[in-house]
Amino acid sequence: MSELRKDPILDRWVITLNDRFFKPAKDTRIYPKPEEHDHECPFCKGNESKAGKPICESKIADGLIRVVPNNGPYLRVEAQLKYKCVGMFDVISGTGANEVIIESSRHNSDFDSMDISSVRAVFQVYKDRMDDLSKDARIDYMLIYKNRGIKAGANTMHLHSQLMALPVIPKSVSDEISASSKYFNHKSRCVYCDLIDNELLLKDRVVAENSGFLLITPFASQTPFEMWVLPRQHACHYHKISPVELDLLAEIMKTAVTKLNKALANPSYNYMLHTTPVKYPDLAYYHWHIEILPRIKPVAGFEWGSGFRINPTLPEEAAAFLRGL
Amino acid sequence: MSELRKDPILDRWVITLNDRFFKPAKDTRIYPKPEEHDHECPFCKGNESKAGKPICESKIADGLIRVVPNNGPYLRVEAQLKYKCVGMFDVISGTGANEVIIESSRHNSDFDSMDISSVRAVFQVYKDRMDDLSKDARIDYMLIYKNRGIKAGANTMHLHSQLMALPVIPKSVSDEISASSKYFNHKSRCVYCDLIDNELLLKDRVVAENSGFLLITPFASQTPFEMWVLPRQHACHYHKISPVELDLLAEIMKTAVTKLNKALANPSYNYMLHTTPVKYPDLAYYHWHIEILPRIKPVAGFEWGSGFRINPTLPEEAAAFLRGL
Repeated sequence: MSELRKDPILDRWVITLNDRFFKPAKDTRIYPKPEEHDHECPFCKGNESKAGKPICESKIADGLIRVVPNNGPYLRVEAQLKYKCVGMFDVISGTGANEVIIESSRHNSDFDSMDISSVRAVFQVYKDRMDDLSKDARIDYMLIYKNRGIKAGANTMHLHSQLMALPVIPKSVSDEISASSKYFNHKSRCVYCDLIDNELLLKDRVVAENSGFLLITPFASQTPFEMWVLPRQHACHYHKISPVELDLLAEIMKTAVTKLNKALANPSYNYMLHTTPVKYPDLAYYHWHIEILPRIKPVAGFEWGSGFRINPTLPEEAAAFLRGL
Repeated sequence: MSELRKDPILDRWVITLNDRFFKPAKDTRIYPKPEEHDHECPFCKGNESKAGKPICESKIADGLIRVVPNNGPYLRVEAQLKYKCVGMFDVISGTGANEVIIESSRHNSDFDSMDISSVRAVFQVYKDRMDDLSKDARIDYMLIYKNRGIKAGANTMHLHSQLMALPVIPKSVSDEISASSKYFNHKSRCVYCDLIDNELLLKDRVVAENSGFLLITPFASQTPFEMWVLPRQHACHYHKISPVELDLLAEIMKTAVTKLNKALANPSYNYMLHTTPVKYPDLAYYHWHIEILPRIKPVAGFEWGSGFRINPTLPEEAAAFLRGL
């Protein structure tokens, strides 16, 4: 029989179909493994001039990580920040930034084929860009996200992620923060810290761990093989991450992507880094984390119209399968 | 330049790209117009036995509307309602109902090719099923939704919608209700009623209207050509709709679907009926409505990770285009 599982942070419910046979390979969308070099790709070695003037660069084993402005940006730093009303409605100018982090010089990389120090450099760049953009007082939030594969919204197979610097706090994050704040008022504990304790106690959704991070399949996984990466020590601001923690984060992210690509034969996936809004002080109740979402299942009307998710794969079974790889 | 527009009810922001050229046909996903009859389709005339024993039937011009149980239901009425905890997590048994409303006997119907009385019969069936299921005290919410076309999650091209009877209130609806309640506490008015007044005053997002309903492209449209249908008179419970209102609703829904199918050459779309939870008394602050979402744009990581939407088509331009059809 199916079950309704509640996300421990949000009032979001997931219907898990625990009466169906577990088939990890079913319904996956495999993306084609590209060639090492694509002479038309603006992110590939030799084509650097096509991607625009880099905002910053970082040397890695097989070339460079480069950060460039999105060539069709949704938000622009040049736009003056303005608030206005249109009748009863609220509007803000498209002020912000939209940067592309080109994570390798090779066309066909993913974290599974990169060495740990190169993966670490990617997460260092995320931190550096946040540190830099946080000087702009108009920016309220910086969201790092990755679109990998066509089903996840990527236009190129060249490994990259994006940074969107926004003049407002996105609803997904403000929902998490207000729910975490309520939990803290009630229990005097961070709900994510409780989640970590709980998962370490129950063990069946733990995929991997090291001294800094935990990799789990969340109890109310929105999709088959969803994974969350959580720092074990309470930390609310990603950009305050230490050099040692960056080593450990690179290790766990490489593990996560390697297992995911093995389990589902290179699925399309997204990941999103949820951190505390940049202007907030240190919060005892919110905990930065990374959500990894394989995009192997279309979202139908029920899900759009309800906020529910339907997940045919139990996270306990997904975790067991991933642990074994 | 782009703009950030706030949904007037939710804290959900949409980036509208008002500096791009308006091309209504771009990026659409056309679904193939099927044959009138598919001998393998369990919903087609002559195959009635394949779809299971009907829960109810309603005679229309070209055959029958039939309601059948979903053959792979997510929730079951037979499941005893149980609440439990697993560690810190909350679980509810998969108790509820999942019904399929087969809206025509012909394989290739949509509202644009059906007469008004047949469309009316569909909305009468929605009401009848809600009236019937509301007798089950375990049910907290009934969501009616339609998946039309492959990109919207449909498995068949035969026109149908679904009813999900749930033991909890879905997050999308409870978010709307709590935001509407806050607005009412502040202004002593229903935010949806204000929205109607506002749209009738500004006029540029009104697509069609009759004496009972308004069809608009919402100010913070999540996708190009999103439309909302709103009853002009305040009404919170869909299932209390009157016979005259059903006539008018059928008329406006036929208009909406006809215009949508013309504008985007039969796009995949979803619609969702948001109404007040069945056990609630009449609410002065919440207003039932139908949201129609063309599925012509993939949802990438930024949207998943933020709750933001990116909409390349201004709703004012979409409304002007739709009005002209």
